[in-house]
Amino acid sequence: MSSKLNHQVRLAARPEGLPKESDWQFTEEKLPVLKDGELLVKNHYISIDPAMRGWMNDADTYVPRLQLGDVMRALTVGEVIDSRNTVFTKGEFVAGAGGMQEYSVFNGKMLTQADLSLAPPEAYLNALGIAGLTAYCGLIKVGEAKSGQTVVVSGAAGSVGTHVGQIAKILGCRAIGVAGGANKCAFLTDRLGFDGAIDYKSEDLGKALDRTCPDGIDIFFDNVGGAILDAALARINFHARVVICGAISAYNKKHAIEGPSNYLNILIRSARMEGYIYFDWRNEWPEMIQELAGWLKAGKLTCPDDIVEGGIKAFPDTLLRLFRGDNLGKLMLKLV
Amino acid sequence: MSSKLNHQVRLAARPEGLPKESDWQFTEEKLPVLKDGELLVKNHYISIDPAMRGWMNDADTYVPRLQLGDVMRALTVGEVIDSRNTVFTKGEFVAGAGGMQEYSVFNGKMLTQADLSLAPPEAYLNALGIAGLTAYCGLIKVGEAKSGQTVVVSGAAGSVGTHVGQIAKILGCRAIGVAGGANKCAFLTDRLGFDGAIDYKSEDLGKALDRTCPDGIDIFFDNVGGAILDAALARINFHARVVICGAISAYNKKHAIEGPSNYLNILIRSARMEGYIYFDWRNEWPEMIQELAGWLKAGKLTCPDDIVEGGIKAFPDTLLRLFRGDNLGKLMLKLV
Repeated sequence: MSSKLNHQVRLAARPEGLPKESDWQFTEEKLPVLKDGELLVKNHYISIDPAMRGWMNDADTYVPRLQLGDVMRALTVGEVIDSRNTVFTKGEFVAGAGGMQEYSVFNGKMLTQADLSLAPPEAYLNALGIAGLTAYCGLIKVGEAKSGQTVVVSGAAGSVGTHVGQIAKILGCRAIGVAGGANKCAFLTDRLGFDGAIDYKSEDLGKALDRTCPDGIDIFFDNVGGAILDAALARINFHARVVICGAISAYNKKHAIEGPSNYLNILIRSARMEGYIYFDWRNEWPEMIQELAGWLKAGKLTCPDDIVEGGIKAFPDTLLRLFRGDNLGKLMLKLV
Repeated sequence: MSSKLNHQVRLAARPEGLPKESDWQFTEEKLPVLKDGELLVKNHYISIDPAMRGWMNDADTYVPRLQLGDVMRALTVGEVIDSRNTVFTKGEFVAGAGGMQEYSVFNGKMLTQADLSLAPPEAYLNALGIAGLTAYCGLIKVGEAKSGQTVVVSGAAGSVGTHVGQIAKILGCRAIGVAGGANKCAFLTDRLGFDGAIDYKSEDLGKALDRTCPDGIDIFFDNVGGAILDAALARINFHARVVICGAISAYNKKHAIEGPSNYLNILIRSARMEGYIYFDWRNEWPEMIQELAGWLKAGKLTCPDDIVEGGIKAFPDTLLRLFRGDNLGKLMLKLV
């Protein structure tokens, strides 16, 4: 085992604005000898997430900042190929934060068993992983979505957005997606069953929200920030919830961003704006995964994978696709 | 009774920016004959509140917009001088939204009995009324303040702010007030027991917050908005609550206001920003009033009154004092 080489992507420099090739360093090293309690995983899929941009900055968020030279933080799913751990054994699949590398060593903590009887491995980065769980926690736990309410989600064709709209429909809500481009919008309404979709690149956002949400917005699930957030805030109902899941429009800004100038509607409408991370409900993940898997099986939830082959070398380019809005569904690298 | 005259202040024009004299119309009319179920109240005190500015705009908020020619909406406390209502009887004191006028007719709904054995009438516009209840609901119900947490309140020398800091202390929190001027700050720390006060007119807000909140901010109770909100957002802790009670810095702006550019800390710190009105807890007011009265009696709560004599004629000038920050504690007109 230890004669194999592990290829890695490390943070070489902190980007200003969009990450560029020179912000990354490609390294290879021998696989380490496992210590007691550790296990070795061969990564099959690695998740590409907007949150990665924040992890690269020189500031702690809900996780500590990466140090220069660290293997890039990334969520992974793969097969246990060696184990000195009593819980996770050779041959099973696990999902965790293995990093942007071909092999990962875990100590068994913060690791989830990927039950392949429920879904294939890649689903544990999608409907049964970060995408589905983030949507579930945000819409149900933070947003408290209830049947009959109007849910608007930005970044609707992204990995979280596709789940938000579909789970909203499962709950009996009206689901409106905001996405960039006619293709994405058609996908949301025709394939995923959204009640409406707004192409922010070709429509006036305010008018389009008025058209698609005649009864106002009860829950705005925001992945984007900026003008979309402001247009939604102008149309929130009394006691609305504004779920702040992300703000991809802001992540590569070099200067202070503009805040939402309509934030005072939170006061006028007795509404709530709340951020969260799905880790906060880690104890409930097993039940959530079962429920999400049930919806998958019943055909109520379709989770488009946007899979890029070519191994970790493809990472820098693939990450930029997120910020170009050039993905449909869950973006991930396929390694095996 | 009906030979007496009732003097009133009515909305004559919708102001742009600060309200001016010509936005008001002074009228007088005979007192009406009471219908079955109605009662007539002679107003002793009328509350002057920042929210009045919002009520004058051509937009509904949590209450319908005023129409031109309407008596200005205002909270009042006074004595029942005639009654055809079975609940409220002649001689007792009641608090309600009687409007900017000397006499008010109520139908008995949305009216609170002012128990003078607990406190004098004016307290029902202050500690036992809008100021105390707004602070109580915002800090305890929305903010979920807990012992040991750090509470920062802006507009701290105002009617709500003085209560927020004192209730925070009663709960065992660290209380920091932001106010304009050394006098107000000294009042907060020396007279009301705040742990610290920041004079936003003479100190760098960020540095002063760093100095007074070494462990960050768990609850920011905002009455002001603008730069203060942004400086506080930059320093919120994980799972912090940002209670949006008001934004007096924005109420007279003629153009779109700037949003809080640090709002993304709500995402990064899994925090919550929430607006509310104390009416939402109307069913719990009786218990809250008892608790607030107990604190008053025990000397734990000091509620400064800022009382202006001169009747309703003094209203236009007095309202402007709020926007100049030229009040300490609860501003009200004394009529009797």
